[in-house]
Amino acid sequence: MNSIDLVSNLNQETHSTPEAIKIGNWMQKGGFATMLGIKVEAARPGWCLVSMPITKHHLNSVNITHGGASFSLADFAFGLASNAAGATAVGLNASMSYPAASKDGDCLIAEAVEETRSKQTGNYRVEVRRKSDNEIVGLFCGTVFVRGDLVSQWIE
Amino acid sequence: MNSIDLVSNLNQETHSTPEAIKIGNWMQKGGFATMLGIKVEAARPGWCLVSMPITKHHLNSVNITHGGASFSLADFAFGLASNAAGATAVGLNASMSYPAASKDGDCLIAEAVEETRSKQTGNYRVEVRRKSDNEIVGLFCGTVFVRGDLVSQWIE
Amino acid sequence: MNSIDLVSNLNQETHSTPEAIKIGNWMQKGGFATMLGIKVEAARPGWCLVSMPITKHHLNSVNITHGGASFSLADFAFGLASNAAGATAVGLNASMSYPAASKDGDCLIAEAVEETRSKQTGNYRVEVRRKSDNEIVGLFCGTVFVRGDLVSQWIE
Amino acid sequence: MNSIDLVSNLNQETHSTPEAIKIGNWMQKGGFATMLGIKVEAARPGWCLVSMPITKHHLNSVNITHGGASFSLADFAFGLASNAAGATAVGLNASMSYPAASKDGDCLIAEAVEETRSKQTGNYRVEVRRKSDNEIVGLFCGTVFVRGDLVSQWIE
Repeated sequence: MNSIDLVSNLNQETHSTPEAIKIGNWMQKGGFATMLGIKVEAARPGWCLVSMPITKHHLNSVNITHGGASFSLADFAFGLASNAAGATAVGLNASMSYPAASKDGDCLIAEAVEETRSKQTGNYRVEVRRKSDNEIVGLFCGTVFVRGDLVSQWIE
Repeated sequence: MNSIDLVSNLNQETHSTPEAIKIGNWMQKGGFATMLGIKVEAARPGWCLVSMPITKHHLNSVNITHGGASFSLADFAFGLASNAAGATAVGLNASMSYPAASKDGDCLIAEAVEETRSKQTGNYRVEVRRKSDNEIVGLFCGTVFVRGDLVSQWIE
Repeated sequence: MNSIDLVSNLNQETHSTPEAIKIGNWMQKGGFATMLGIKVEAARPGWCLVSMPITKHHLNSVNITHGGASFSLADFAFGLASNAAGATAVGLNASMSYPAASKDGDCLIAEAVEETRSKQTGNYRVEVRRKSDNEIVGLFCGTVFVRGDLVSQWIE
Repeated sequence: MNSIDLVSNLNQETHSTPEAIKIGNWMQKGGFATMLGIKVEAARPGWCLVSMPITKHHLNSVNITHGGASFSLADFAFGLASNAAGATAVGLNASMSYPAASKDGDCLIAEAVEETRSKQTGNYRVEVRRKSDNEIVGLFCGTVFVRGDLVSQWIE
């Protein structure tokens, strides 16, 4: 999967930084991210792009992607974008809207963008799109509390 | 697991209705709910109680429950409470706060309550608690759009 | 207006504490609360009841109460409940749903309840109702960041 | 006030349409918008720019802008952007974060952008900034329900 292609219409620079990618790879190995199949495509402080292929394990009883699955992808992107600068940020709350659905065989792409960041809090916006047609299936907003410790302490 | 015990301190009647339980069992068989281990404990129109044991597959990289996992449990409860009367209700959006964390070995209990319901929309509140000590780990609010069709059409 | 009547069906104790009422009266004198006609009915740490009579100055162009007006009442209640214990709490974010409308001549009552409170954050829920028939017109959830300083420093 | 200046760094086209401006002017005459001093700067279907000078009547007891005041400005912008195409849209819910404060003498500018719109629902994002330094003081997300009737029926 080519992250340049994924963001070509998002009017964003796509360069990643090594520290952010290292943090992303570590987050990607978490149990929940692994179970859901979440993959980091690109990351730098305050921004990232992550993907999740939809399988039958992501569906609800009417065979569309469960709201919790697309939220989880957005929440992972929120976590990576807010921690990618190296200071630990903890999610306080988040909201999500579901303008459209997705289904088995789709691939979802989430792009997280930092809107504000102060010493103690930060606000992030995440758009979740179907890769095939770029349709928005989720709009997510989240707020973090910034702690004083570093993410690097947790990585090996 | 005894649903009477689960809600003993919630000051709620715990009686379920057969139609709501039938809908809950059908929702529980969905791919995502199955993968996460979500179980319906009790349900009636506008209310339900669901549980999810936390395993290593629900954790993030710092070994606490991923925000997406507890959100997914709350979202499932929201879906059941809003559909348990038999009319199809579709989630429009939701918000969640995370006042505390949970970890491997905990069991999470989500209780969804209908706050308002009109012909076209409804609002629901969900509290997610650790079963062991009843501590609130998630506060969820969601809004549905009520469609004209019946849930029963989907249940063979 | 009798605060006992207002909450008679809310299954809440209605006793106030002198410190919370003092803080409420000080907040009530703020420019915005004064312009909107917000009045503190009852308050104690983590809980309060406030009212706002709707006039033509609270309406939008279709002559129902502007969403910003009912939000402002809820937000005031959120601020009072979260500061009523004496430690300064600052709103980080809030969400609101509008299940019904109100109009000129109605009186709105907002009841704020603390759901969680830790050393650094707190979560509050506010219900806004029409006094005449107790119908819910607004459902509000808010999160605060708790600072180390005291509210009393601001009150001469 | 020059709307070109206001949006110069927002990378948005600033052209308005006569129908949207007509709807905006009608909304601006509502009682609440008048009391708060809200002014429409530019509008077209799915987008608008509105302003509100902060006076002592917008402040809380610690002399910063009340959260309800900046929310009200954002909510007005949300209402105009979602109705500017001529079909009546009703706000279902909204959320707001407060990354920074403003005070007496500031002028707040809110820009609303349509993120998604279907036949029945729409999602909008609003940024509220201090005009003097372009600092974000509010981030707002809102969802509307689209009704079948026209806004024009309400304008004499």
